[in-house]
Amino acid sequence: MRYNTVKNANNILSSSSYLIKEPEKYKGKWNSVFNNNNPIYLELGMGRGSFIIEMAKKNPKVNFIGIEIDSNQTAYAINNINSQKINNLRIICADAKDIIDFFGKEISTIYLTFSEPWPKKQDKKKRFTDESYLRLYDRIFKKNKHIILKTDNKILFASALESLSNYWYVFDKVSLDLHNDERNIENVMTDFEKQYFKEHRQIYYLDASFKG
Amino acid sequence: MRYNTVKNANNILSSSSYLIKEPEKYKGKWNSVFNNNNPIYLELGMGRGSFIIEMAKKNPKVNFIGIEIDSNQTAYAINNINSQKINNLRIICADAKDIIDFFGKEISTIYLTFSEPWPKKQDKKKRFTDESYLRLYDRIFKKNKHIILKTDNKILFASALESLSNYWYVFDKVSLDLHNDERNIENVMTDFEKQYFKEHRQIYYLDASFKG
Repeated sequence: MRYNTVKNANNILSSSSYLIKEPEKYKGKWNSVFNNNNPIYLELGMGRGSFIIEMAKKNPKVNFIGIEIDSNQTAYAINNINSQKINNLRIICADAKDIIDFFGKEISTIYLTFSEPWPKKQDKKKRFTDESYLRLYDRIFKKNKHIILKTDNKILFASALESLSNYWYVFDKVSLDLHNDERNIENVMTDFEKQYFKEHRQIYYLDASFKG
Repeated sequence: MRYNTVKNANNILSSSSYLIKEPEKYKGKWNSVFNNNNPIYLELGMGRGSFIIEMAKKNPKVNFIGIEIDSNQTAYAINNINSQKINNLRIICADAKDIIDFFGKEISTIYLTFSEPWPKKQDKKKRFTDESYLRLYDRIFKKNKHIILKTDNKILFASALESLSNYWYVFDKVSLDLHNDERNIENVMTDFEKQYFKEHRQIYYLDASFKG
């Protein structure tokens, strides 16, 4: 999907209270940012944020944090939130690799939705489900580990099943065709996904956990 | 796939030395049947046996046992083996539910290839990957558990991923498109699969183990 450049992206970012400019400052103290003790769910690579914005609106008793490395996409998301006022949502514009600088053991769920699949073998380590990332997640999960992943990419999905199971995650729910799953798995569609849905493309889904 | 009825099926079965008529007699003693100590691999629901026959021919250092409940399909397989002489292969015509009567802890690998998917929710317990079956397998695996599964059915595959991971199996290899997997996973095609291959149908594959 091509994105239009957001005008004045830097201005939008610097003037928004939804964007946390120095996330390191709140490591271990995110409850103080949200001013409550509700669980915190994190999305890595939120893109333009349509998924996490919708999730935050639907689940007011959960705090959401979206991370996106691309400042243009982040500005797009911020623009969208500014017009809505969503108290239980914050945004970080940064590399997902740096999450251990931003969070202590305070995250309950990580969402990986339509992450860059890095399908080539030599790029395997860049996938958000590579063991090196799973080790980072260990350092920010509160107690139980919980990952929800959606993708249309066969290679990413198969490799996620391998690496998560080898890391002792258990699959509570797996679907090979989310939009036609008779169990009616609750689902908020991302921007990509809305397009794929129209094209009847098969979406893979997994809900994995490790009870600590 | 429709099968033609095999003429004189009962005669074929009763006269073949490949068919083990009273498998209970060899419980814990299958090495004596094969006259060696090679590992024993089992296929549940072998159908007409094309997969296990080919596997046995390709792997002379492994003993193979195929189980099929349908006597007509079993007779078809026996007919095929009789004309070839394959010393490392035996056949049992019985219900897979009864495996604990036939085997002690002496099986190294179980193959589930294009098993009846039982896609309806109320038939879940009939799937060969249901927990009740996994408990049976525990009683016949030698030391390490090892299951290889192939199917074209999304529901069976997703449910296998769930039940196996909840039973602490680890997925050493998963493919969502076996015939187009760039890793070139070694594969002997079943009868069904040859047909599906022609139709470019997506085949799901998993190699799961639990090291005891």
